Amino acid sequence: MGYGELDTKAINTIRVLAADATFNSNSGHPGAPMGMAPVSHVLFNKFMKFNPKNPKWLNRDRFVLSNGHGCMLQYALLHLFGYDLSIDDLKAFRTVGSKTPGHPEAHDTPGIEVTTGPLGQGICNAVGLAIAQAHTAATFNKPGFELINNHTYCFLGDGCLMEGVSGEASSLAGHLQLGNLIAVWDDNQISIDGSTSVAFTEDVAKRYEAYGWHVVTVEDGDNDLAAIEAAIEEAKSVTDKPSLIKLKTTIGFGSLNQGTHGVHGSPLKADDIKQLKQKFGFNPDESFAVPQEVYDLYGKHSSDGAAAEEEWNQLVAKYGESHAAEHADLIRRQTGDLPEGWEKALPVYTTSDPAIASRKLSETVLSKVEAVIPELVGGSADLTGSNLTRWKEAVDFQPESTGLGNYAGRYIRYGVREHAMGAIMNGLSAYGTILPYSGTFLNFVSYAAGAVRLSALSQVRNIWVATHDSIGLGEDGPTHQPIETLAHFRALPNCMVWRPADGNETSGAYYVALTAKHTPSIIALSRQNLPQLQGSTIEKAAKGGYVLQEVEGANITLVSTGSEVGIAVDAAKLLEKQGVKARIVSMPCCEVFDQQSKEYRLSVLPDGIPSLSIEVMTTLGWERYTHEQFGLNRFGASGPYKDVYKKFEFTPEGIAKRAVATIDFWKDVPVRSALNRAFAQLD
Amino acid sequence: MGYGELDTKAINTIRVLAADATFNSNSGHPGAPMGMAPVSHVLFNKFMKFNPKNPKWLNRDRFVLSNGHGCMLQYALLHLFGYDLSIDDLKAFRTVGSKTPGHPEAHDTPGIEVTTGPLGQGICNAVGLAIAQAHTAATFNKPGFELINNHTYCFLGDGCLMEGVSGEASSLAGHLQLGNLIAVWDDNQISIDGSTSVAFTEDVAKRYEAYGWHVVTVEDGDNDLAAIEAAIEEAKSVTDKPSLIKLKTTIGFGSLNQGTHGVHGSPLKADDIKQLKQKFGFNPDESFAVPQEVYDLYGKHSSDGAAAEEEWNQLVAKYGESHAAEHADLIRRQTGDLPEGWEKALPVYTTSDPAIASRKLSETVLSKVEAVIPELVGGSADLTGSNLTRWKEAVDFQPESTGLGNYAGRYIRYGVREHAMGAIMNGLSAYGTILPYSGTFLNFVSYAAGAVRLSALSQVRNIWVATHDSIGLGEDGPTHQPIETLAHFRALPNCMVWRPADGNETSGAYYVALTAKHTPSIIALSRQNLPQLQGSTIEKAAKGGYVLQEVEGANITLVSTGSEVGIAVDAAKLLEKQGVKARIVSMPCCEVFDQQSKEYRLSVLPDGIPSLSIEVMTTLGWERYTHEQFGLNRFGASGPYKDVYKKFEFTPEGIAKRAVATIDFWKDVPVRSALNRAFAQLD
Repeated sequence: MGYGELDTKAINTIRVLAADATFNSNSGHPGAPMGMAPVSHVLFNKFMKFNPKNPKWLNRDRFVLSNGHGCMLQYALLHLFGYDLSIDDLKAFRTVGSKTPGHPEAHDTPGIEVTTGPLGQGICNAVGLAIAQAHTAATFNKPGFELINNHTYCFLGDGCLMEGVSGEASSLAGHLQLGNLIAVWDDNQISIDGSTSVAFTEDVAKRYEAYGWHVVTVEDGDNDLAAIEAAIEEAKSVTDKPSLIKLKTTIGFGSLNQGTHGVHGSPLKADDIKQLKQKFGFNPDESFAVPQEVYDLYGKHSSDGAAAEEEWNQLVAKYGESHAAEHADLIRRQTGDLPEGWEKALPVYTTSDPAIASRKLSETVLSKVEAVIPELVGGSADLTGSNLTRWKEAVDFQPESTGLGNYAGRYIRYGVREHAMGAIMNGLSAYGTILPYSGTFLNFVSYAAGAVRLSALSQVRNIWVATHDSIGLGEDGPTHQPIETLAHFRALPNCMVWRPADGNETSGAYYVALTAKHTPSIIALSRQNLPQLQGSTIEKAAKGGYVLQEVEGANITLVSTGSEVGIAVDAAKLLEKQGVKARIVSMPCCEVFDQQSKEYRLSVLPDGIPSLSIEVMTTLGWERYTHEQFGLNRFGASGPYKDVYKKFEFTPEGIAKRAVATIDFWKDVPVRSALNRAFAQLD
Repeated sequence: MGYGELDTKAINTIRVLAADATFNSNSGHPGAPMGMAPVSHVLFNKFMKFNPKNPKWLNRDRFVLSNGHGCMLQYALLHLFGYDLSIDDLKAFRTVGSKTPGHPEAHDTPGIEVTTGPLGQGICNAVGLAIAQAHTAATFNKPGFELINNHTYCFLGDGCLMEGVSGEASSLAGHLQLGNLIAVWDDNQISIDGSTSVAFTEDVAKRYEAYGWHVVTVEDGDNDLAAIEAAIEEAKSVTDKPSLIKLKTTIGFGSLNQGTHGVHGSPLKADDIKQLKQKFGFNPDESFAVPQEVYDLYGKHSSDGAAAEEEWNQLVAKYGESHAAEHADLIRRQTGDLPEGWEKALPVYTTSDPAIASRKLSETVLSKVEAVIPELVGGSADLTGSNLTRWKEAVDFQPESTGLGNYAGRYIRYGVREHAMGAIMNGLSAYGTILPYSGTFLNFVSYAAGAVRLSALSQVRNIWVATHDSIGLGEDGPTHQPIETLAHFRALPNCMVWRPADGNETSGAYYVALTAKHTPSIIALSRQNLPQLQGSTIEKAAKGGYVLQEVEGANITLVSTGSEVGIAVDAAKLLEKQGVKARIVSMPCCEVFDQQSKEYRLSVLPDGIPSLSIEVMTTLGWERYTHEQFGLNRFGASGPYKDVYKKFEFTPEGIAKRAVATIDFWKDVPVRSALNRAFAQLD
């Protein structure tokens, strides 16, 4: 071991940079970086393998800062170790357009693995990264070729531990025996409200032991570098359990206010920084100063990392000679491209096919494509038989010792843990070799709203198989019937909300969702059977919205989604008997429709004809596309689904009545398509 | 103790009713009711005090079925003990319009305390009920007058324990030493995906001990009634810790498929029910049959409960003689009415008052009204200093032994546990003597979406103080800047979303939120300072939307909320210089505006004038009110807030430009108010 002055200097450099950057931008959280500088130094310089010149090297160790507000710690480390993050980038901390935003964002900053800040998310992402590592290793490693053996390290604070989502993921991680996952808890006894004694007095170590984790304690995380190193060594030696290192630290170490919440979320005062620099042997008149020997020390480690990558690349090349197919697969997966021709596996339907629930159609898609998309890794939050997310011969992702599966298995039993499932999917996506999907009821995707938001913000690809998508689920009643859910996620930027109406649209939804490299998708699917529609194709559905049925001299456009499209078709027949001509637009995904050319969109929703949207949940947002809206701006009801649809008039008759009212209301007015707008939206 | 044949018969009656009702409606979950019938019998008949003739008796013991899918258990018990729930109601299980929906709904069914079904919520509601009990006892009990001493009992299943929200609330309950809370875990080893061994192998008992709970195990929950009784006795005897009873049961006890997930979510087959009835000594040809002696047994217990209430009523009357003020307060609180004249405490502002952040304005409201609304109980998810939710002299709700407060304290330190906070608020509201509010950042109300949804569905009054309500929070950046959040909750039925623009509007928002007995509110508040506006009043704001500034011969209506209203006012001045007349509508709450007369609404958003909405987040939903929308349909940016607003053109110039475009676009078309619709929405 043996730590000396240079180590202290490096640690203090991190602390001073954090103090300088937060002071300079008059914003941010110096406390956690100053307290966690010692463990960062030991972890990054003694244990972690990475190559700053190639932050995407597949077998790098992963680092997640779950307490993302402490991001100046991470930015300082990335800079010092030679990532593409300059001193000027640190000076631009928390300013518009910088690579150093207020919380770490994966798509903005080289070396940031996942977007964190919202508490509890990062540790779940780390669980996902560790699952991905175990799965990728089990899939690709061969005798003599241990290609994948990286560790996932995660820092987390008291806040992360209080959030339930972290408990969900940690319980699952213990069950899955993720030995390559090592979390470091910054046990500094401080959160924003002051001492953690006001709200958080549980025995965290005991709780993690109950989850099946190995727990190590470091009594003096401020100074005892040898103990920190020993703790990480011990954690690495336990290979059948994730480890939690309980690291006792002093928040804002070195500040006059160290150990108080005064250093948590506000910059240090000028005189405090001055005494800090003096105490640490830095020039108090200099800011953002880095001793050359610190650059040299860390630069050496980074060079070693580059060499390690080079060695690894050679191993991979050799692997290619003996395992050509696996090699090609591993290379391809990292591009995000799917295997050539995979889309031929998508099922196609005609009107002679029977009515089928779209959750069942989804099962068919998954069962057909799983063989051609080996990176597809699925799961469900304990609703496998309801979500139909598991293809028949799937193997569960489980530790071999359980006798229930193995790490090469591609189906994850998430348990009733929707929020962690979403956050774990973000980690799975971030690893680089997996395309995750998972299931729950649409209504309970809301439990995971915090994670879905980060999927969208961090531009990852994953898929929610969101079944039981409306009052059509019937008897379970209002507690389970989504009303606001589609509007919620339609309002979220960079998130596709799909609601396919039949088999071809279900295939189309999957086509786009699986190929959208930088966008998550929610596919809302019915419990009840839906007829195969005349006029639907995968290609049309992939445009997000299209004319399902055109009619010469139409009086109205009916715009609908999912299970209501078939009812709209029947309504059009009814209207025809009344001498009313209705054209039908199916709109399985508004976001994708929005991306089409204006010319195309106006061909779908043209001027001159009033339009009526039909969707059996909130109408909020449909005013963007249609003149009138038929929906459900109230909670649903418990009963057999046909009775519930009837109660709320989602029947051909109920639609026809409103279509007639719409035509009548708009008859004396020049009708302009709702798509015509005075100015373009920002993007 | 001594249990005999009649006890067995009563237990089997519950089981058979659950089997009959789920079979009859061909839907539902017989397994949990059949497994938990023994503990229900012991708990309800030996321990719980309640009066079915007055389900709202304040000091009744509370019962929460957190595994709400097992609601036939609760419906059977309510029927058998004589609540207003007939055999016909049981026959109508899960049909439209019944009092026995697919999951228990508090506002529909007498004897249901809280709405459950979404897993994990009920146990948090129970924590809220237990906090409310402890607080109400500490506030009102006097020597010789132990008015409030009820217990809160909660059943929960493996699913509830897997959900993170239950962990959050349980950790807090342990910290708060809620001795009157007793939870019974139905440890049946089965969830929907089969054996819990596939995903849930943690040591739950150890975890709960880590939270500071007392844990008791009952090895044979199917048969050992004496052990069940002893466990509950033991739990009651531990008065400084909540208790968890780990009750090992067999799901679907008595069914041919008992102990499997086959009995979890599907009715038993006809022949299975037949053998069940034969085995239990029931006539296999009869359905919904209740032995008279079971009615008699339970009826006796209910009579005892009625007598206990009568005795309690006399105690309360006597209390009134010696403690008149407290007595009056206790009676009033139960009506939901606020004290006469409380609204005089609401602050009023004029334009000569300085610009103030609306989170600060909110703090002023709370500080002014807390003295006149003693039932107001606040808190924050570890953001007290940011949300400004704590009035200066507030006492924390803490166990006396911590030295940090006492149970009469009115400020709850929730820790970083937003979801549990929301669900606990639902329990606090349900108790009947508390009006809860609590704070977090608006963006993190999304973490609690599952709980907010149930606030709305179960029609309870509580208030989210949702600060840092937009990109105006600045440096924290996109991970913390809400875009979709307001649209999400506006789409939720029976939920008020407020975004006040200044001091008077903040008072107006609180006025409506505090007096809306059956509706939760989210009040979105700024971090940045907002000017006091000419034309705002509490009364106008309380209409949800109003004309802030009228102008003769207006060319456009600018409609805005919160921090953007002041910018819109400046934009109008700019436009005036360009010869454009803009009237200004402030719309602090769309839902409340929607409830006004059409005449009033059309006076605010009249025909003949194009309108432009301005809100610095998603435009989704504003199409319902305005012709054009200026918003942010993308994620925000990290930086000082003025820079961020400028980047996205939320400036007088940016608004004026779009106003001109709007006027130009609509100049050749007859303009109809967006409020005019072809048909009315269902409600």
